[in-house]
Amino acid sequence: MEKKDPEIITEKGLMRNWSRSMRAQGKTIGLVPTMGYLHQGHISLIKEARKHTDLLVVSIYVNPGQFSPNEDLSTYPSDFQGDIDKLMALPGGVDVVFHPYDLYDYRNNGSESGENDTSKIFDAKDEDGREKAVVSCIEERQSGHETWIRVERLEKGLCGKSRPVFFRGVATVVAKLFNIVEPDVAVFGKKDYQQWRIICRMVRDLDFPINVIGSEIVREDDGLAMSSRNVHLSTEEREKALSISMSLSRAKIAAQNGQVSCRELQNSVIQAIQEAGGKVDYAEIIGQENLEAVEEIKIPVVFCVAAWFGKVRLIDNMEIDMRVM
Amino acid sequence: MEKKDPEIITEKGLMRNWSRSMRAQGKTIGLVPTMGYLHQGHISLIKEARKHTDLLVVSIYVNPGQFSPNEDLSTYPSDFQGDIDKLMALPGGVDVVFHPYDLYDYRNNGSESGENDTSKIFDAKDEDGREKAVVSCIEERQSGHETWIRVERLEKGLCGKSRPVFFRGVATVVAKLFNIVEPDVAVFGKKDYQQWRIICRMVRDLDFPINVIGSEIVREDDGLAMSSRNVHLSTEEREKALSISMSLSRAKIAAQNGQVSCRELQNSVIQAIQEAGGKVDYAEIIGQENLEAVEEIKIPVVFCVAAWFGKVRLIDNMEIDMRVM
Repeated sequence: MEKKDPEIITEKGLMRNWSRSMRAQGKTIGLVPTMGYLHQGHISLIKEARKHTDLLVVSIYVNPGQFSPNEDLSTYPSDFQGDIDKLMALPGGVDVVFHPYDLYDYRNNGSESGENDTSKIFDAKDEDGREKAVVSCIEERQSGHETWIRVERLEKGLCGKSRPVFFRGVATVVAKLFNIVEPDVAVFGKKDYQQWRIICRMVRDLDFPINVIGSEIVREDDGLAMSSRNVHLSTEEREKALSISMSLSRAKIAAQNGQVSCRELQNSVIQAIQEAGGKVDYAEIIGQENLEAVEEIKIPVVFCVAAWFGKVRLIDNMEIDMRVM
Repeated sequence: MEKKDPEIITEKGLMRNWSRSMRAQGKTIGLVPTMGYLHQGHISLIKEARKHTDLLVVSIYVNPGQFSPNEDLSTYPSDFQGDIDKLMALPGGVDVVFHPYDLYDYRNNGSESGENDTSKIFDAKDEDGREKAVVSCIEERQSGHETWIRVERLEKGLCGKSRPVFFRGVATVVAKLFNIVEPDVAVFGKKDYQQWRIICRMVRDLDFPINVIGSEIVREDDGLAMSSRNVHLSTEEREKALSISMSLSRAKIAAQNGQVSCRELQNSVIQAIQEAGGKVDYAEIIGQENLEAVEEIKIPVVFCVAAWFGKVRLIDNMEIDMRVM
């Protein structure tokens, strides 16, 4: 396949026009939503998407709606030109990079005659004066955006506990991207396992006409799951962070050898990460579909871990299915 | 225009296929979502939609997601054959009646290999054991549906106070209908003023590619706003219920004659309804765009009322815009 420059589209309306004109020509469209700073994990999503559709859109947008004001939105790594270079180097390339400046700016394309409520400070307290549980960088920006999608059960556990705005923001921005790009297929990484399941559930529950595909985790040669945040790890932290993937691999082997007690398996992973100097956020073995805790491995499960090394929060997971050993 | 029988479609997939094949032929599609038991108010929405698109879909579906278990889902009036007769009698008719049996049944068209969680009882309490604020008939049915759209500010006041699940359910089912029917234009009645504004905001915030049109209230000859629920009023109650529209009309005239104090205007309406034997749920003068209370009429406002007559809760409203007197 020849190399080609992707078309870079920054406006919602132009993006939708492109998709509609392609669909009118009978083409199918794949979407890979990213926050940029692309690595081999993203590339694998793009290659997966290529298998399913004629055309491919990669979105690059750091979504403020999934960050709380005290999280790392301002330091989230970005390198747009580097991303474009990587996409151009791909066999077959991608057709469009959708790179909006601000998906929450409704001044020029609102449905309500430009009314935007920017004059009003968003009230971050409820009527009784209590602090609301969920406030993201969007409320802080007072853009007037106030519609949010909640996947009420799946969003609660794992990363939802420590990041209460995260999945609300992810589900909402993905719905926006779906409505702008109108893809036939969207590919998400199983590295963000809970996110992938939440998107699948949202698509089912809201009847989005989109086939959601989960793509396997891509790891560095030594086993570290690829992540844009890895760049923030010092050499020493990066070495210690291997304790996550290594202990997960050992736990998977132990399970396959008959150790089905989740408590035992979880303790072994927690201990390994703590001994390496990491701070465990969670280490849970849960059902692959419903993300609910199990005591013994009888159904297909996924072992999900989040841990801090220095100032960097890393997540990883491993599926364990005793039926397909 | 000739009369024609509408095509009746009951399956999501067939509905979407119809829309896509029509769009491929260059046709535009209008959607009028209803809960059936059609009256002249609905007919006016259909006539409005006819002005904007080539083809017209009317959905008839009583949405359990917008009723709480203690509300009137089971007694909500229905007359499907009567509805079809009314639609057939319309000049130009409608092209499709979308009449799904259950929009929340995912057993045959989920994105997740039939997994449906029906085995699991939905947990209506949060982790601390407190009752959740918002539970509709959907949670009670244990369909596995768990994705909900919240328009967080606009859903709070007026009907949202006494019906906490209502707008969550409306926004969610409308998003589902949008994703199934894929219309270019959707028409909503301004009788449900808060609902109309919430749908407009949702469409803007989630970037739905749909033009939402608000259609004016249709009244009986004596002024009563048309509603499917009017059928439940006794002759006596129906007479007394006229106090709503009559007092609203008087308030509008008073405002136009210089009475700009909202407290005075609201008190006059409350008093009139109470004197007629009605129980006022709310009578509020609010901004037309942000639905926030105003003290004096300076911007375009809408005077919204909800009141009970017997076991029937009625709503009505009147826009007041001093700039267009």
